[in-house]
Amino acid sequence: MPTADRIRVAVAGASGYMGAELLRLLLVHPRVTLAGVTSERLAGEPLGRVYPHLRGLTELALHDLDAGWLADVADVVFLALPHMESQRAVPVLRGRGTKVVDLSADYRLHDPQDYVTWYKAPHIDAAGLAEAVYGLPELHRKAIAGASLVASPGCYAVGAVLAIAPLVKNGLARLDGIVIDGKSGVTGAGAQGRKVDPMYLYTEANENVQAYGLASHRHTPEIEQELSALAGSPVRVVGSNYCDVAVVADPRTGRAVCVSAIDNLGKGGSANGVQNLNILFGWNERTGLDAAPVYP
Amino acid sequence: MPTADRIRVAVAGASGYMGAELLRLLLVHPRVTLAGVTSERLAGEPLGRVYPHLRGLTELALHDLDAGWLADVADVVFLALPHMESQRAVPVLRGRGTKVVDLSADYRLHDPQDYVTWYKAPHIDAAGLAEAVYGLPELHRKAIAGASLVASPGCYAVGAVLAIAPLVKNGLARLDGIVIDGKSGVTGAGAQGRKVDPMYLYTEANENVQAYGLASHRHTPEIEQELSALAGSPVRVVGSNYCDVAVVADPRTGRAVCVSAIDNLGKGGSANGVQNLNILFGWNERTGLDAAPVYP
Amino acid sequence: MPTADRIRVAVAGASGYMGAELLRLLLVHPRVTLAGVTSERLAGEPLGRVYPHLRGLTELALHDLDAGWLADVADVVFLALPHMESQRAVPVLRGRGTKVVDLSADYRLHDPQDYVTWYKAPHIDAAGLAEAVYGLPELHRKAIAGASLVASPGCYAVGAVLAIAPLVKNGLARLDGIVIDGKSGVTGAGAQGRKVDPMYLYTEANENVQAYGLASHRHTPEIEQELSALAGSPVRVVGSNYCDVAVVADPRTGRAVCVSAIDNLGKGGSANGVQNLNILFGWNERTGLDAAPVYP
Amino acid sequence: MPTADRIRVAVAGASGYMGAELLRLLLVHPRVTLAGVTSERLAGEPLGRVYPHLRGLTELALHDLDAGWLADVADVVFLALPHMESQRAVPVLRGRGTKVVDLSADYRLHDPQDYVTWYKAPHIDAAGLAEAVYGLPELHRKAIAGASLVASPGCYAVGAVLAIAPLVKNGLARLDGIVIDGKSGVTGAGAQGRKVDPMYLYTEANENVQAYGLASHRHTPEIEQELSALAGSPVRVVGSNYCDVAVVADPRTGRAVCVSAIDNLGKGGSANGVQNLNILFGWNERTGLDAAPVYP
Repeated sequence: MPTADRIRVAVAGASGYMGAELLRLLLVHPRVTLAGVTSERLAGEPLGRVYPHLRGLTELALHDLDAGWLADVADVVFLALPHMESQRAVPVLRGRGTKVVDLSADYRLHDPQDYVTWYKAPHIDAAGLAEAVYGLPELHRKAIAGASLVASPGCYAVGAVLAIAPLVKNGLARLDGIVIDGKSGVTGAGAQGRKVDPMYLYTEANENVQAYGLASHRHTPEIEQELSALAGSPVRVVGSNYCDVAVVADPRTGRAVCVSAIDNLGKGGSANGVQNLNILFGWNERTGLDAAPVYP
Repeated sequence: MPTADRIRVAVAGASGYMGAELLRLLLVHPRVTLAGVTSERLAGEPLGRVYPHLRGLTELALHDLDAGWLADVADVVFLALPHMESQRAVPVLRGRGTKVVDLSADYRLHDPQDYVTWYKAPHIDAAGLAEAVYGLPELHRKAIAGASLVASPGCYAVGAVLAIAPLVKNGLARLDGIVIDGKSGVTGAGAQGRKVDPMYLYTEANENVQAYGLASHRHTPEIEQELSALAGSPVRVVGSNYCDVAVVADPRTGRAVCVSAIDNLGKGGSANGVQNLNILFGWNERTGLDAAPVYP
Repeated sequence: MPTADRIRVAVAGASGYMGAELLRLLLVHPRVTLAGVTSERLAGEPLGRVYPHLRGLTELALHDLDAGWLADVADVVFLALPHMESQRAVPVLRGRGTKVVDLSADYRLHDPQDYVTWYKAPHIDAAGLAEAVYGLPELHRKAIAGASLVASPGCYAVGAVLAIAPLVKNGLARLDGIVIDGKSGVTGAGAQGRKVDPMYLYTEANENVQAYGLASHRHTPEIEQELSALAGSPVRVVGSNYCDVAVVADPRTGRAVCVSAIDNLGKGGSANGVQNLNILFGWNERTGLDAAPVYP
Repeated sequence: MPTADRIRVAVAGASGYMGAELLRLLLVHPRVTLAGVTSERLAGEPLGRVYPHLRGLTELALHDLDAGWLADVADVVFLALPHMESQRAVPVLRGRGTKVVDLSADYRLHDPQDYVTWYKAPHIDAAGLAEAVYGLPELHRKAIAGASLVASPGCYAVGAVLAIAPLVKNGLARLDGIVIDGKSGVTGAGAQGRKVDPMYLYTEANENVQAYGLASHRHTPEIEQELSALAGSPVRVVGSNYCDVAVVADPRTGRAVCVSAIDNLGKGGSANGVQNLNILFGWNERTGLDAAPVYP
């Protein structure tokens, strides 16, 4: 129900699971009005037909991906787009004074050369990159509050950094001895646009574990960036309802085993994005996010 | 956050999945304060230790199952107890003027003899049985609003009655020709107290379908009761977000195939119970229930 | 290990789950040699690269679908093709004297008009249709033994007919009162060629039940054909390891509830096809099929 | 079908998943006759009633766990017992000249002090421990062939040692820098006697990943024992159908990532035990094990 004191938000890239989860959260957020949604693949379709579970919550239809139109209809735009696409939309939005929470990888790495190394393409918006704030509230809450462009972190990075940061910050870990083993559900593969690939078929993925991204996962550089920065800075991981962290010390081998668990579309993506929105506007960080987790 | 205009509610039987889902819903319901929770098995334990996902949402600890104490602390009591146990608590609660929403089977059948036939035990609270209203809002909304005791229906009954009622009401179905095939997830088996039985082990239940209750499922008599009543009455099924219904007519065989889908702990139990609460107090029926369904 | 007294078999359509299961069974069958495998989509690929679990069991590569070549290399050909494709290959194979076990729907219905009604296309091989034997050994064992073309039944038909046949045969069921509710795992959708459709993605299918084919499933006419024939004939369902059947009588309503369970790629497809092969050659019906079911 | 030239085998501990898988393999093994099965919990029950999937394959009933009786009926005994129980049975069996393949942890560690450290109890059969051969054929094939007591390895040890051994053997790994992350299905918890614990309920375990045994898993010492021995010895891991191994080198960090996958009841337990049996008797190692893996 739009009211004068609600912020207008839009979501670009609604056909992926990350965009869908954003819609689910924003449609019941008490301080915002969902004012626009885009999808290149499904433009023209009513949202309630694409997502039956949202029927009755919105009358919006999907619009073409058009950054100018997004700036017209919204005060803040969430980009749930594949990397490379976000950096095309951001300069237009920022030129219009529209705030952006980007869930892609495009603005997470401070050094444009790291982007080239890991994503195999040049970055076309160096100005945006220089301004972007890494959207992990537990490490960068103050910077997020004043940002115009927030780069929400990758799901593995959220889980890994929140678990390891306290050890690094307190000088308890050798940076060259860290080994990270991440496991994700299959929604991770369809976060931006549901990929229809045989390896994601139920019959192939069910009861299966598939190794991928060995020594090459693209969330690696942002984890290194954040942990390296921490090694010489005064921050500390704050516990949250959304990231359970446990640490076990093994005196026999001198190793610490850190275990963390997040919802990869929640704290690892859309809910973390909404938390960034709340910080951007000075609201209680939990606004619209305080539903208890589903159980069992 | 308790305030003067909030109703005090309690939940008896918090160790089962049905009670756990009630807690999840009631803890964020804007018109109620959770004032008491009982569990015979876990009495004394803080709720946040039993259910880590509720940590931070409540400081309550589990209390013994004591109907007098429940009447002291709450205006409305939800009973998520096994059948036979509810009928022991209800007379005490009603004697104290406390409203009751019972999620067990104890007050669903109007005829005490039906109870004996299907549950193999006499019913000890005939007075309560005579007063109870069958808590399916789509059929009995007005009666629920004035009730002191609401008997929330069984999950299969919700799915079956909502799907079939329009056909029966409009004389489109022969009552002796109805065949119902219901499928439930495993939480159904642990709705009241999580049963630890080998057949519910992951290794036994996973990727499996188990036939049970053939021609003898205890939700059968309440389905027959409601559909029989409908055959001569002026009600009508109202669509809701929570029960998707589809009907396919097969002219070749003269049969109609009705398909309905509910969350067996949601519209099939706890959420339906909260909807009854909202009706009891004249609130918007969707209060506390308007979160979009989880996807995917 | 090819030897003089082994029969040469080939499988057409190896990219689907049904073909894959056939290969798994035939490669360790003691009386046959796998002599050829075809796939239009993967022609040229070594079988061990397409199916890593078969590595070390065969050196064969996939060949184009070419009925003449199949007749050259094999004494018996299994067709695990989509319907419409089988009827193009069968006349060529039969013209060369090659025996055929067809796992598609093309030769299951005796009446060509039924084929038009349910499969929306004319049948182009009336001669083959007239000769084909319906490959359910429990009903047609003798006819299969002398057949040149065996039409292996659909998976739902196997489960339904084996469960209901004894009642029909003994006059215990009204043919117009039978209701069948079938449930299949997702491999059913990829039995002939793995379909890559969003509805079969893990993220969409997992923890889900999807209703389909209501009053229109294409296994319906073959079930009706077989049960109608039974109503006046002297056969009887023989118990097997592969189809568990249970029947519950409900005297209250005069209904019988029959439950049957099969592996939809096993007794519902490939293993049943191999059983037909064994009957064709007069071998023990269980040859190559006596591995105990997997548990748990 | 017992014949003069078949070896008589028995399985002690048939109520767990490991014992059940052994039965499935041994009942169709062409060189052995299953001559006895024990279960303390289910003694007296026919095997086909406990395991419906084995119905028709055996007439045996479960016997009490009685080492003397096992020595009477069998030439080789598989022990699928919990640790501590195996070491009570082994001395009796060895005293009678019966060969033993032990699937428990009791005889895996050469040093009795290691046993005390990791299993928190003294070892009561030092003589057996001194004679036992670690049953990983790829490392100890020759010793197994002449053994009277084979200690089949833990499932995590099989996966870890086969993946890492080639690097260690060739001096490519620093022994103090190895990090192992193992994941197991839930059958691992019920390998010896199906545990009925709430954490293994479908509703709790489904779609879940549970961290356990951090820095304390009891397969750790056997992995260390085997890799330490390798560092100075001339053996080499031989590829097999049952353990898929992949290695990725990361020049950026100087680390190697090894991934291996086994069936934890197969190569990680029962099938590896049968492979040891085949070696003990000089048969082809794959005898009774050459069924292709199930797919998909």
